[in-house]
Amino acid sequence: MAGPLISFLTDFGPESAPAVCRGVMWGIAPEARILDLSHTVRQFAVRDGAFLLSRMVGYLPVGVHVAVVDPGVGTMRRPIAIRTGRGDTLVGPDNGLLMPAAERFGGVAEAIEISASPWRLEPVSATFHGRDLFAPVAARLACGAPLASAGIPLEPAELVAAELTHPRREGDALVAHVVTTDTFGNAVLDAAHGDLMESGLKLGDAIAARAGSRRIRGVVARVFADVEPGALLLYEDATGALALAVNGGDAAALLGLRPGDEVRLEAA
Amino acid sequence: MAGPLISFLTDFGPESAPAVCRGVMWGIAPEARILDLSHTVRQFAVRDGAFLLSRMVGYLPVGVHVAVVDPGVGTMRRPIAIRTGRGDTLVGPDNGLLMPAAERFGGVAEAIEISASPWRLEPVSATFHGRDLFAPVAARLACGAPLASAGIPLEPAELVAAELTHPRREGDALVAHVVTTDTFGNAVLDAAHGDLMESGLKLGDAIAARAGSRRIRGVVARVFADVEPGALLLYEDATGALALAVNGGDAAALLGLRPGDEVRLEAA
Amino acid sequence: MAGPLISFLTDFGPESAPAVCRGVMWGIAPEARILDLSHTVRQFAVRDGAFLLSRMVGYLPVGVHVAVVDPGVGTMRRPIAIRTGRGDTLVGPDNGLLMPAAERFGGVAEAIEISASPWRLEPVSATFHGRDLFAPVAARLACGAPLASAGIPLEPAELVAAELTHPRREGDALVAHVVTTDTFGNAVLDAAHGDLMESGLKLGDAIAARAGSRRIRGVVARVFADVEPGALLLYEDATGALALAVNGGDAAALLGLRPGDEVRLEAA
Repeated sequence: MAGPLISFLTDFGPESAPAVCRGVMWGIAPEARILDLSHTVRQFAVRDGAFLLSRMVGYLPVGVHVAVVDPGVGTMRRPIAIRTGRGDTLVGPDNGLLMPAAERFGGVAEAIEISASPWRLEPVSATFHGRDLFAPVAARLACGAPLASAGIPLEPAELVAAELTHPRREGDALVAHVVTTDTFGNAVLDAAHGDLMESGLKLGDAIAARAGSRRIRGVVARVFADVEPGALLLYEDATGALALAVNGGDAAALLGLRPGDEVRLEAA
Repeated sequence: MAGPLISFLTDFGPESAPAVCRGVMWGIAPEARILDLSHTVRQFAVRDGAFLLSRMVGYLPVGVHVAVVDPGVGTMRRPIAIRTGRGDTLVGPDNGLLMPAAERFGGVAEAIEISASPWRLEPVSATFHGRDLFAPVAARLACGAPLASAGIPLEPAELVAAELTHPRREGDALVAHVVTTDTFGNAVLDAAHGDLMESGLKLGDAIAARAGSRRIRGVVARVFADVEPGALLLYEDATGALALAVNGGDAAALLGLRPGDEVRLEAA
Repeated sequence: MAGPLISFLTDFGPESAPAVCRGVMWGIAPEARILDLSHTVRQFAVRDGAFLLSRMVGYLPVGVHVAVVDPGVGTMRRPIAIRTGRGDTLVGPDNGLLMPAAERFGGVAEAIEISASPWRLEPVSATFHGRDLFAPVAARLACGAPLASAGIPLEPAELVAAELTHPRREGDALVAHVVTTDTFGNAVLDAAHGDLMESGLKLGDAIAARAGSRRIRGVVARVFADVEPGALLLYEDATGALALAVNGGDAAALLGLRPGDEVRLEAA
């Protein structure tokens, strides 16, 4: 019998802070399979974390998913644990981080405020709720403890909504936003293939991508190999999002793109 | 029944060398839960590794803890395995690296020199004792083999002591040392909150931090959100150590801090 | 009973892409022990990945080994799963990446083309075969499904060979190539100790290493501590390969070395 799954996403950096949290989790739930999703979310960038988590959860087994991108740690923001329609449990701060993932899992079925959870590690530090609160609560839930015992019930409607960006049409152009850039300099946008088609663009079309004062020509393509080395392509990535890339290069550097930036896409 | 825990800390860099050691461990102890603590300790910085390990171990379950920061590999330095008062086993080089962690676990109850351990992988390489000696010895111990069978007994008093820095008072100032800087540029000091109070400083006080020729004003605060964006704070981190940070910025860069540097803290 | 072993090597970068693949694997094979070997292979550098994998596999338990360095993803290149003489299974693209590792495991005993595998995740994306094809096929094989059921048989002789470099003699010099550089700036070469001896060089000899227009003197040594701080050494690394290093420094930076570069080694 495999142990329960706990996935784990933070902005803590790759090293010792996530490891301490894993130590706490394995102390409580020694059978748990702990799946690190990412610990290099841009620091305090709740929107980046929310989008990344929501893109990944569809590929995860049912389990407990802990996410901590938490600029409000030590303030009045609420720590929460929520059960979704699919049966997963999400644990983290109530700042919108968990909500897009919860939507993908069928919405919030039950929500609990956990600031005074009987499962926290006392004394709870002012700055490291990942270790003292979220990790032990997640581990107890993974062991099968009932969610209602984790703290005090909340109305799902009271939860803080995620602040995601959305693409828009401007004349014949599609204006999207950079959600994240990856190791290779590929820039994932908040638009999907359907948005592109509504703008009248299709596979093989020449396009221009404009960001700030830079304007680069490229092609709507299926895979990198469809364009010349060094050329820009706009493609549908593996999760169904539109993304900009340079074959063998770095699209984010070429266009000067950072998360949150606007990119204007139009026929060229 | 969960498998035994093996924690693992090195200066090998994050990638293939720790992976090979994990492969060796899982070949011998297939049930082991392997917990990577950090593999980005500053290369050959025994003191950094000793401090980091000692800060983390209190959050780990009882188990075998392997640590390798080993500038003397291939020389006469002794490889050791030690049992602590709490019942944990520490495996690594006898250069002080393991000693602060052993203290936190109740001191050294038994020490074994393992250079000729029957469990080593032959031929033992000159440069990769992590793979050929420490990993297989740790894995055998995790499987329940008796420590005394790992090699030759040593007197605990013969073990090499850790060379840690210590803070000091100079008039009204507290002079501390940077132990480590993290991903965010926060600088952890070798002083604790008690040292600060002895210097007459308390929560909310204005301070100056001086390092080399730089002098920056800040505040003794509880959490980042207590100060303005861009402002310096001196706070007690989650492990009880004093640390310098900049809200939304990089304290190590601002003050030019590297591990080992002195920082002078005084009222301002 | 420990679960089956799946090792995992890619050029995906350290974070979310490998995590999604692990999620897919654990969804199918919840008992699997997943061993990340490296996810920072130079992007699309099939030769680097092939060499790294072949150096590591000798230390791994028998299992399923997934490797993805795949510049041809989305084109006609074949995805494959192969069984080796030792009983391991290798899964990845048919571009030479798996072949040196297969040689170390006793050669290819059986090969299957898996592009239409019944175990793939539909719809298979154009760009993320790691998640949609290699991960689920590896997980099914780890659960004990027969290799022949993974797809369509291939003749082992049809598989694409690896394009590795090889060292050569030029007069009294040994001309080798940089295979990879590690975190510390050590440069691993494609030559072994035997090649050095054939060039008449032995432990303790003074040598010169020339790369491009740079020429640096050093010593054939056993370990870093055999030379002065800052001095260059040529040594046999833990896997039996020759490597260049600087004691306390960065040999790759000193000589301007990158993977694939030639280095000329001769007596000095």
